This record gives sequence, C-alpha cells and structure tokens, in this order.
Amino acid sequence: MIARSFAERLSARQAETASLVCIGLDPDLQRLPPHLASEKTAAQAVIAFNRAIIETTADAAAAYKLNLAFFEALGAESWNVLQETLNAIPEAVPVIADGKRGDIGNSARFYAHTCFDLLGFDACTVSGYMGKDSVAPFLDHPGRGVFLLARTSNPGGSDFQKIEYQGRPLYEHVVRTALAWEEPGNDGTKGSLGFVAGASDIEALRRIRALAPGSPLLIPGVGAQGGHSSKVLEAVREGSGPVLVNSSRAILYASDGRDFATAARKAAEALRMSLTPTLS
Amino acid sequence: MIARSFAERLSARQAETASLVCIGLDPDLQRLPPHLASEKTAAQAVIAFNRAIIETTADAAAAYKLNLAFFEALGAESWNVLQETLNAIPEAVPVIADGKRGDIGNSARFYAHTCFDLLGFDACTVSGYMGKDSVAPFLDHPGRGVFLLARTSNPGGSDFQKIEYQGRPLYEHVVRTALAWEEPGNDGTKGSLGFVAGASDIEALRRIRALAPGSPLLIPGVGAQGGHSSKVLEAVREGSGPVLVNSSRAILYASDGRDFATAARKAAEALRMSLTPTLS
Repeated sequence: MIARSFAERLSARQAETASLVCIGLDPDLQRLPPHLASEKTAAQAVIAFNRAIIETTADAAAAYKLNLAFFEALGAESWNVLQETLNAIPEAVPVIADGKRGDIGNSARFYAHTCFDLLGFDACTVSGYMGKDSVAPFLDHPGRGVFLLARTSNPGGSDFQKIEYQGRPLYEHVVRTALAWEEPGNDGTKGSLGFVAGASDIEALRRIRALAPGSPLLIPGVGAQGGHSSKVLEAVREGSGPVLVNSSRAILYASDGRDFATAARKAAEALRMSLTPTLS
Repeated sequence: MIARSFAERLSARQAETASLVCIGLDPDLQRLPPHLASEKTAAQAVIAFNRAIIETTADAAAAYKLNLAFFEALGAESWNVLQETLNAIPEAVPVIADGKRGDIGNSARFYAHTCFDLLGFDACTVSGYMGKDSVAPFLDHPGRGVFLLARTSNPGGSDFQKIEYQGRPLYEHVVRTALAWEEPGNDGTKGSLGFVAGASDIEALRRIRALAPGSPLLIPGVGAQGGHSSKVLEAVREGSGPVLVNSSRAILYASDGRDFATAARKAAEALRMSLTPTLS
C-alpha cells in the first residue's frame, strides 16, 4: 500500500463525511458539566468528557484538534489523558496537535518526534517566527502535516501579522516564504505544508487561499469568535487544498447539563450543514 | 515581606554569584554519558544526569533554563522528570521554562498557569507572533518573568526577524511594541518583561539593549553556536537590566565519560569567568 499524504487523507475524510468541520478539544475543567466534574478526578472527568464528545460528534467531524494548553494543565496525568483521548478517536479521523511549537532545529526535531512518533498525531500547528529550521523538522515526517501560523483570529493577531513589508502584509510574506522552502510534499515523501488563517479576517483568508490554493487550511474563528460560514466558503471557493473550519467552545460547551454530548452533536452538525450548503 | 520582581531576584542572584551564566538543560538521551543511559530507564537516566549537572554547576549558575522539548519527549514520565529536576535546583536560583509558547489569550492563560502555578518556574520564553493577548497572560503573574522572542540565534532567525518595517528590522518593532503594552512591572505588581536576543547577531543585541536598557535579556548562541563573550559584554555595556548568557550543549556534553559533571562544572566556570572579566 502506498502511504498517502496528510492532505490526501484529510481530503478523503472530508469527502466521506461531507464535512469541513474540525472539532477543537479544549477541555477546560471550569466549563465541564458539573455532574462530570463532581464525580471524578480532574483527569477522569476530562477523559469522560472527551470520550462522550467524540462518540457523538465523530461522524460529523472531518478532524479533531487537541489544544495542548488544556492538556498540559492537567499536570502529571496530562500524558495519559492525551493518550486516552487519542485512543477514543476513530482511526479514520485525522487529529491535529495544536501546540504552536517553534524552536531551533535541534529542539524542533524533539517536538516533532513527540508529536508524530510518540503520540501519533497526524498534523500539528507550528509558529514560524524562528524561520525555516524551526519548521523543517516537522515536515521531515512523511504522511504528516504542518499548519503554519499565518493570520490568526485573535485580537492580537493584527499586532505583527498585518504590518506591511514590500507592499504586502507580513502574513503573506510568511506564506510565500514557507512555500518557497520546499515542495508542499503532496506526493507523500514530505509532510504536507498548510496554514492557519482565521475567519475573522476574510480578506486575509482570501489572499492566503490565492497564494496557496493547493495547501490545507485550518480556519479558526467561526462561531464563538464571530466568523461566518458563508463568508469563509466564499473566500476559499477557488483552490483545491482541503479546508478545515475549527470550532471548539461553541461545540464543547453547547450545554453544561447531562445532555452536553447530544448538544455538542447538534452544534457540530449545524456547523457542518452551514459549511456544505449544497446539502443543507 | 515585599515580593520582589523576577528582574530584581535575577539581579540579586547574579550579584551573589558574580555570574551571568544561564545553564540550559537540554537532556538528549542520545548524548548522555553511556554509563548512565545503560543502567537505568530513560527517565531515571535523565534525572540522574540533571541532578549531577546541577550539583556541580549550581554555584556558577545565575539561572537554569529547561528546554521543554527534551522533557516532553520522555512521554508519560516527562512531568515527573520535570518536577524532579526542578526539585534538584536550589531555591535561590531562578529557573526558566523554555517552551516558546504563544497562543490566544484563553490558551495562554492555561500555559502560564501550568508554567508558574503548577511547576513553579520563575520565568518562561514566549513567542509573540500572535500579539498582545498571547503574551499578556504570562505577565499577569507578579514576581515572574517573560522572555519574548526578539532576535534568535538560529540560522532561520533571519527569515522574518530581519525584514524591514518602517526603516527598522522586525525584531526592533517587536521590542518597541511589547514595551508599549505595559510597564515592565519591576515594581512587582506585574511580571517582568524581557527579551531573547542571540549572540550570533551582535548588532541586533546592541539595538535591543538600547531600546530596552532596563529589561532582562536572555542571550543564547554563545559557545556551540559561535557567539563570543567579549562581544556580548561590549554590546550590553550600557543599561541596567540583568543579562543572562545561556549555554546548553557546550556545558552538558563537555564530556561523555564518568567525569561529565566535573567537566560540565569546568565549562560553566570558564564561561562565567569569560563573562566577568574584572574577576578573571
């Protein structure tokens, strides 16, 4: 069997589920349903929560994204909770480690090893401020993917990403430079290079799609952060790379009652439908 | 007792030890002395290695820096190894978490909580590509410190950090912008804001020192990466903020024999002396 690239596997999953939805697992103890938090240790509560969310949402999910900040905060149990969560996700669903790592080559190799070889993630988010040798070690894993931060959806995203360089915003320069580092690797001999482009800046999303039409895009900022599905769809209309629209809190915390998992399913399904207008 | 700022505690430690040396703990299993690696599990070997290094080098160390990439790679045992390593470091020595985190405010709060509240680090490195709300949560911890990436010492550091914006390199814009976010907090009500400025670009180091003369600086790139102590000292001569010169591999792996800890001590002491010319 010929190993497929991350971009190909993601595209296949999206076709199969008619879904562009990436469900972000940001398990915040303060926001878990009280009945879960009261009955168990913190680690047990998070595992039970994640399992229930995954069970009800998996068939609407093109991918899951685990926000490592929330797992780390579980301390000594964090590795176990990560593994139990990964074990609960069906094999066919790509899983992204959202850690935004970025360090010199020697350290980046260790981060990539932990992420891909030890934990088995399919892709990860990476910050490129430190340049090529901080990103390349993640792309040295065939069949895996990297989402490089380009234009993020948070308020501070404008502080540096939009400064003008050679007549264009910095985030464009980041995308152009990274694309020039090497072939995107869609032949499977290298990892797939994709980008993070938030839904809160539709113009940036459109520009990034135009610069990298074949690259996977991870799009946060729909829902809780204010982005609109229809505008996102319009912005990425041209191009062939798989597009993932992430939602975390609006799905996870749709209800804090005993119906939290079915409420999450409804929220995920509503987002899925809003992103596949021909099916709705 | 009035709590002191991180910058004040670091300055006090430096005066006490006559040392600017930050010892970087990057425990790479492939480079540990063979007699350690063969006798124990990976986690036990790293704990034994770190303890021995700390025992022999602590009185020459103004600070330690733990590179989280190397700890994470120990998997389920990583949290325990981190804690055992932190426990081995004398109370008086500030300890920096080198993880280069940088994420939206909600996630950054979790990273800061893990780093400062759960693990008890005194400071950490942060990447600012995502702007103010990705950095501010780390500064909301009085008595702690942040080293924001400005000009890094790796080859890729030039890819984005040196692009020209308004007639100045991007790293200068990062420093200016971050300083404007808030008071450095040396009164102890906020964390201390410092910067990472590598020894491989002395001109950048000089400019950053001029822009932020009162801020702590963390300077990697001396030794294994080619920077020179005398040039670093000259570049930071003006200014009052505490300056830390980090060395990792050149100290840790000075010998791979049974004398590794005494060899590390010699290397640390040689670096300390090279940075305190009035004492040498």
